[in-house]
Amino acid sequence: MGIEKKTYRSGPYQDFYCEATQVGNVLYLSGQIGTDQDGNTPTTTGDQTKIAYSNMQSILARFGEDMSNIVDETLYVTDMSELFAHIEDVYGAREAAYGRAPEACQTVVQVAALVQPELKIEIKCVAHR
Amino acid sequence: MGIEKKTYRSGPYQDFYCEATQVGNVLYLSGQIGTDQDGNTPTTTGDQTKIAYSNMQSILARFGEDMSNIVDETLYVTDMSELFAHIEDVYGAREAAYGRAPEACQTVVQVAALVQPELKIEIKCVAHR
Amino acid sequence: MGIEKKTYRSGPYQDFYCEATQVGNVLYLSGQIGTDQDGNTPTTTGDQTKIAYSNMQSILARFGEDMSNIVDETLYVTDMSELFAHIEDVYGAREAAYGRAPEACQTVVQVAALVQPELKIEIKCVAHR
Repeated sequence: MGIEKKTYRSGPYQDFYCEATQVGNVLYLSGQIGTDQDGNTPTTTGDQTKIAYSNMQSILARFGEDMSNIVDETLYVTDMSELFAHIEDVYGAREAAYGRAPEACQTVVQVAALVQPELKIEIKCVAHR
Repeated sequence: MGIEKKTYRSGPYQDFYCEATQVGNVLYLSGQIGTDQDGNTPTTTGDQTKIAYSNMQSILARFGEDMSNIVDETLYVTDMSELFAHIEDVYGAREAAYGRAPEACQTVVQVAALVQPELKIEIKCVAHR
Repeated sequence: MGIEKKTYRSGPYQDFYCEATQVGNVLYLSGQIGTDQDGNTPTTTGDQTKIAYSNMQSILARFGEDMSNIVDETLYVTDMSELFAHIEDVYGAREAAYGRAPEACQTVVQVAALVQPELKIEIKCVAHR
């Protein structure tokens, strides 16, 4: 249909989906998790959040974008009470990533499980330019 | 990157996220819950739905939009069987909010928990103008 | 507000929501499930995935679009371990539907329940043209 997309692929499953797909002014990102480039996943929600945003920033940079382009976030967590117990760490990591009060919506739900059992948070977002 | 957004913030956590972010023709809304302006949350799914849509309408109005601008909805519920037990109340509240058969998609999933234990439904939507 | 939408409705609940809503270049689809046109739902995740993508293709075709227009997917599953146990079937069905490596993002979460107890997967996606 002639739609022009720019995609970014990474990791062992890169034949199956993209980490990000840009079409027109919109950049969709796959849910980002708290596993770093070396495959390590820290145990706390705050540390996982930090890595998830770091991964997000790396992806945005590949499209010439940054956190200011994010307009909508969905946070999938596995334990809402743990999230709130560490909310300062989580929002601290978030604010550090954005560098300012985020101009982005946010929806937070507790799911039954994420793709790997050690994950406590996954952040799915949409960016516009 | 020079992206122009219009945002609406409200409530105690307004430094951390926006209730709505408009960019170009698209208006993203954070998930809306059944807690009213005075902080009260009714117990039934139907009543919570009514308030969630009312909150949504207030936000849309701030951008000069209304329910006819909604194109996509995700309903996160905490008890699917209770949702269906009260489906007439829920769809009644929804139809009253839209004022007609909604020209919007809808995806309904049961999550493990919402941000507060008394919540039974959260509605996340996207509007276009 | 004069927003121009093109919608597609189907099934017993078509007064309440649309299977798809197109606005500008964007086509939003409601979450698609593994129930076929005759109301049958196979038991395996792989077979349900096949039908969900088939339903998605039918809807896209009504708007002159196809799988190449999909830019973002959210997979809601009810059992992550079962998903991975049948991941070859699921990704096989997916690759068959796309006809190539999908140029689409993907977010996978395990929810507590879908709209009917026999469902194991629901796929919600966004297409652009």
